[in-house]
Amino acid sequence: MTDEQEVTDQVVASFDAAKDERFRELMRALVRHAHAFVRETRLTEDEWNAAIGFLTAAGHITTDTRQEFVLLSDVLGISMLTVAVNEPATGDATESTVLGPFFVQDSPRIEPGGDIARGAAGEPSWISGTVTDVHGTPVAGARIEVWEADDDGMYDVQYEDGALAGRAHLFTDAEGRYRFWGLTPTPYPIPDDGPVGRLLEHAGRSPMRAPHLHFKVTAPGHRPLITHIFVADDPYLRSDSVFGVKQSLIRPFDRHEAGTRAPDGSRPDRTWTSASFDIVLRRD
Amino acid sequence: MTDEQEVTDQVVASFDAAKDERFRELMRALVRHAHAFVRETRLTEDEWNAAIGFLTAAGHITTDTRQEFVLLSDVLGISMLTVAVNEPATGDATESTVLGPFFVQDSPRIEPGGDIARGAAGEPSWISGTVTDVHGTPVAGARIEVWEADDDGMYDVQYEDGALAGRAHLFTDAEGRYRFWGLTPTPYPIPDDGPVGRLLEHAGRSPMRAPHLHFKVTAPGHRPLITHIFVADDPYLRSDSVFGVKQSLIRPFDRHEAGTRAPDGSRPDRTWTSASFDIVLRRD
Ligand SMILES: [Fe+2]
Ligand SMILES: [Fe+2]
Repeated sequence: MTDEQEVTDQVVASFDAAKDERFRELMRALVRHAHAFVRETRLTEDEWNAAIGFLTAAGHITTDTRQEFVLLSDVLGISMLTVAVNEPATGDATESTVLGPFFVQDSPRIEPGGDIARGAAGEPSWISGTVTDVHGTPVAGARIEVWEADDDGMYDVQYEDGALAGRAHLFTDAEGRYRFWGLTPTPYPIPDDGPVGRLLEHAGRSPMRAPHLHFKVTAPGHRPLITHIFVADDPYLRSDSVFGVKQSLIRPFDRHEAGTRAPDGSRPDRTWTSASFDIVLRRD
Repeated sequence: MTDEQEVTDQVVASFDAAKDERFRELMRALVRHAHAFVRETRLTEDEWNAAIGFLTAAGHITTDTRQEFVLLSDVLGISMLTVAVNEPATGDATESTVLGPFFVQDSPRIEPGGDIARGAAGEPSWISGTVTDVHGTPVAGARIEVWEADDDGMYDVQYEDGALAGRAHLFTDAEGRYRFWGLTPTPYPIPDDGPVGRLLEHAGRSPMRAPHLHFKVTAPGHRPLITHIFVADDPYLRSDSVFGVKQSLIRPFDRHEAGTRAPDGSRPDRTWTSASFDIVLRRD
């Protein structure tokens, strides 16, 4: 046992010469916690080998559009914990949740009331609301990025053809209002044909995410907000594979008959839903 | 803070349904320790991103012959701690150290007194000793794998031409004795042109390993031994980049003039060294 503590002490001390104080602190803490895991579990050499094999497989499946290490962080709740540490609930502003692996930097712009689907299949959904600060003051010109999977559970970046679909950005009007057509969110599995999928299977865990629509909201002078809205009453709300659900982000999606009049005056030729989401930003 | 503990509790509970008890135990411990690291360091989202980028780069540089995740485990002392946990010093048997990333399954066989260099450049070194059990009984027919870097600090698997050099296996004779020509070990850097090398540089740590010769010894009825011998009086003994040095594994390498008679009757036309290493195996 002396041996074991000696190794840890040596490795911690090996970071003494690091000039960057924060890096030094992070590496020392990483070593202490990683070593505590090995000591506590009496990790075997075969298990260590399996871990190396897992990381190697995760690295090899990762590309520009498939991020297995983000998935790993997500299913171990590390992503959500990082959100909790950096964006704690304040009671007065909209809560944050995970970014996920499917955000894309340059999405198409739509006008108020436009459609983000651009060919992605699914039931139309009218989403509207306001962006205000914590005092209720409207935030005009806030940039709202929205993205979601189609009703096959696929994001555009998972398509073969490189199309941009199911994502767009728009801006709030002078009263801080926004509105657009999206798709009623449906449950989908996180990509589960790689090592993370095998880990979930071995754990008896579902890869399914609770149905959701992603938002990223930015406005000068305000703290950026990365969040989702979730569909009320969905069974996957209780077992979201990345632990992203927060009660305050669950919204009813009301379903309407085909041919009924939508808020923009159109009469969709199939059923459609509507949901509202009022967003409250914190000041920087 | 309640939020943060809630995330951890949810993730730990998500492994409740895993059928494999050891897997369940390992995953729960991994989650607890990883989350404790994030909470304690107040890991930022930029730092989390940098970690994802690091793992991705490590995955992409890893091939059949370059194992960046093993290097990472080595420089964080996780490999050596795993050795300490699984092969604790017993006082009566030869101590273990790290396998390292350069072991190859099928090395050429040499006869007693043969040469492992096979074209690898360096100063010849006559290595000899015995393999016994902890009671001093010779172990006949023990298989000894040896491998080492050339005097450029390169292992054969790092050559462009795919040659097998600086590695071989041989067997002990009826009295448990072995002897072979190798190369006097020289210091070498672990591969430092990837993310692990950049981590060491940022830490102000040297990538150099203390000069060593690798051994893997197996014999029926005995516990396999993976170890090194290190060259006495080398300055890198105090700062081995993978924390592999143990006092009991340090051996004097005596240097002899060119033309002096070696134990096998040959007279090398350059300086040569000799070292002895008596190996003691534990019973299974
Ligand atoms: Fe998503
Ligand atoms: Fe080595």
